Amino acid sequence: MTLQAAPLRLSTASKTFEADFAARLHWSADTDAQIEQRVADILADVQQRGDAAVLEYTARFDGLDAQSVSALELRKDELKAAFEGLNDAQKHALEAAARRVRSYHEAQKKANGESWSYRDEDGTLLGQKVTPLDRVGIYVPGGKAAYPSSVLMNAIPAQVAGVEDIIMVVPTPRGEKNALVLAAAHVAGVHRAFTVGGAQAVAALAYGTATIPKVDKITGPGNAYVASAKKRVFGMVGIDMIAGPSEILVLADGTTPPEWVAMDLFSQAEHDELAQSILLSPDAAYIDAVQREIDRLLPEMPRRDIIARSLNGRGALILTRDMHEACAISNRIAPEHLEVSSREPHKWEPLLKHAGAIFLGAYTSESLGDYCAGPNHVLPTSGTARFSSPLGVYDFQKRSSIIEVSEAGAQVLGKIAAELAYGEGLQGHARAAEMRLSK
Amino acid sequence: MTLQAAPLRLSTASKTFEADFAARLHWSADTDAQIEQRVADILADVQQRGDAAVLEYTARFDGLDAQSVSALELRKDELKAAFEGLNDAQKHALEAAARRVRSYHEAQKKANGESWSYRDEDGTLLGQKVTPLDRVGIYVPGGKAAYPSSVLMNAIPAQVAGVEDIIMVVPTPRGEKNALVLAAAHVAGVHRAFTVGGAQAVAALAYGTATIPKVDKITGPGNAYVASAKKRVFGMVGIDMIAGPSEILVLADGTTPPEWVAMDLFSQAEHDELAQSILLSPDAAYIDAVQREIDRLLPEMPRRDIIARSLNGRGALILTRDMHEACAISNRIAPEHLEVSSREPHKWEPLLKHAGAIFLGAYTSESLGDYCAGPNHVLPTSGTARFSSPLGVYDFQKRSSIIEVSEAGAQVLGKIAAELAYGEGLQGHARAAEMRLSK
Repeated sequence: MTLQAAPLRLSTASKTFEADFAARLHWSADTDAQIEQRVADILADVQQRGDAAVLEYTARFDGLDAQSVSALELRKDELKAAFEGLNDAQKHALEAAARRVRSYHEAQKKANGESWSYRDEDGTLLGQKVTPLDRVGIYVPGGKAAYPSSVLMNAIPAQVAGVEDIIMVVPTPRGEKNALVLAAAHVAGVHRAFTVGGAQAVAALAYGTATIPKVDKITGPGNAYVASAKKRVFGMVGIDMIAGPSEILVLADGTTPPEWVAMDLFSQAEHDELAQSILLSPDAAYIDAVQREIDRLLPEMPRRDIIARSLNGRGALILTRDMHEACAISNRIAPEHLEVSSREPHKWEPLLKHAGAIFLGAYTSESLGDYCAGPNHVLPTSGTARFSSPLGVYDFQKRSSIIEVSEAGAQVLGKIAAELAYGEGLQGHARAAEMRLSK
Repeated sequence: MTLQAAPLRLSTASKTFEADFAARLHWSADTDAQIEQRVADILADVQQRGDAAVLEYTARFDGLDAQSVSALELRKDELKAAFEGLNDAQKHALEAAARRVRSYHEAQKKANGESWSYRDEDGTLLGQKVTPLDRVGIYVPGGKAAYPSSVLMNAIPAQVAGVEDIIMVVPTPRGEKNALVLAAAHVAGVHRAFTVGGAQAVAALAYGTATIPKVDKITGPGNAYVASAKKRVFGMVGIDMIAGPSEILVLADGTTPPEWVAMDLFSQAEHDELAQSILLSPDAAYIDAVQREIDRLLPEMPRRDIIARSLNGRGALILTRDMHEACAISNRIAPEHLEVSSREPHKWEPLLKHAGAIFLGAYTSESLGDYCAGPNHVLPTSGTARFSSPLGVYDFQKRSSIIEVSEAGAQVLGKIAAELAYGEGLQGHARAAEMRLSK
């Protein structure tokens, strides 16, 4: 039997569109009670027994025996050696990507991440001091889904923010290390790295052990155990977000070569059979052309089985009435990756309210953004772009309000504060304000 | 027996300082498994039965019977009437506070919250679009701890961000409404309000019911049920933070009138017996003077019982070797409110790395910041200032990366991306990049 990839064909003009569309979008982030309980147990155990528990779980889950957690540390010279062992093309690509990612995040810091202040008419100083976190932990998945690009995308914004201590954890099942991941840690300026993974790594970073230092925030993607552990330690440390399956939505006016769009859909689908690839276009003939390219290109793809499962199970090619309707549907989905594959991308961009990253024009394939355009590839999934943002320098900074009330300002503010404080029944607040009033 | 408030006296020179200090700081955010289970049940029930469940829980927990959730809505004219029923001093105070809070948050948006972009040497456009959330829910506690100032502090940054739909929920046990809270909702420009509280209110906002609209993010403080519910819906909607007991830390060089500092400690302690008030000073005689003022002022305070319990149970007056050491200890605590009660506040401010808000100089009592200086009074507690920030305009905005790769840029980036993608075994990503290379 020939392998086929046939994303669901929908049309917004169909009477059953709303129901069909909802069914296709449905994805449940329901947590598994059994995983939650096992994670709770692992966290409690690491909190209590520290290194010893980390060693036991690493032996049990990763088949990696070590005498001490210290023996699981990847030293800086080992990271450097991994980089030096790469071929020139890989070295160049990693360095070029790191340089662009760094330069984008520096611009981000400059635009939105600097301290600011002003004085009001009474001479009162108001502002906010923006400072880096002291120490962060970066979780890097191991095994099959070990992505060096994720090391860059997590570590570089932390470094640009000014974090002094970036601790990476990466599981190495049966001791297999990924040279590109180690090299990326070198290029990105990771300060320490441990070959520990799973809930036990999250626990070690959140509570600290004798060997692994306690961090202030944990970022980076992981499996269901890692996600559950991050959610559980949230509040005691900061976390970035809980990632769901990856998604791409392409808005196409029919002017981009259909094979480019077909390959862009593949590039999402090849991640995972739960990944979602959706095309929205008002041009029915173009949708047919994309389907033909899917048929033509699929057999060439080494990951064709995953691609076919993903496109058949979760993909969709949707005919819309016009590009305006396509934009409105995109806003309902709030996709992680949004390609505006149009000759007039700037006409549509202002209509797009919710998306992790917006890729404008035919040349901007998602994959360029994934690796090296500069912006972060850690993006909100599953519609969470409605309320959350790409990973950025701001995730590694925090703010402190600065207030210096002048003597003159205290005379004005003191009366207002006292009035409101008495209204709330908080006389201590009121008196503290009144004491600053001139007699 | 005379009521006494005697915060623990510590000295950093003491051999037992570290242990004594750790014991005093200790506060456990441990969640109660029974509360967690009850909250999970309430959430599931509201998700399934919607309005009917909200009505039942409101009747059961708040003693408030209504025929429909719609009958629990506070209409705009009711909020306006509450404002108009206030006396002139209250009206003026509420409006003046709102004006200052708005002006500060507008400055915050301008400084750190605008979209930005740049073009690189190949003409590739990179940037970030900053947009408001569509709809947010604000939880306002009811009953004894009903604070109109919290309405301003949550709603105004949302409004400044440009949120079009601000939904307030506030429990009104046995139907008792707080006129100042309703008036504050009017002044702050809340769009809709419902007299619903507890986990059922959080559930209604997170899932939506027939009457209460689903929101994108929920902010605002609440009791243990509300906190547990917020943590549980986190990921499906955004949440602000999980607040612990409030804290103040005063760094004093001995130049501020000791009665001012005593009252500032009271103003924290009067919130709650778990609230924490700490004074750090290198001047032993000054610490004695503050204790004398505590003794003198306590009997005058209507909330003296709570103040005494808080100061006796969690307060501390700590003698340090010098101001530098006081700053270092403050960084370990990462306090919510940090007063630098010194003649040279700008000498110490750069040494202070972690705090929710920093109040500089003798005139800047925390209470001025709580009500009307302008900065937000929703601040990270329990040491979370190490990694989180005051509530702000940024909490009601999200960002979308913008990437428009030029044809020339695609030639450079395509090769880098393809190299890295092949290295990660993602051939679809590589091919999508390569297709954009000129033949």
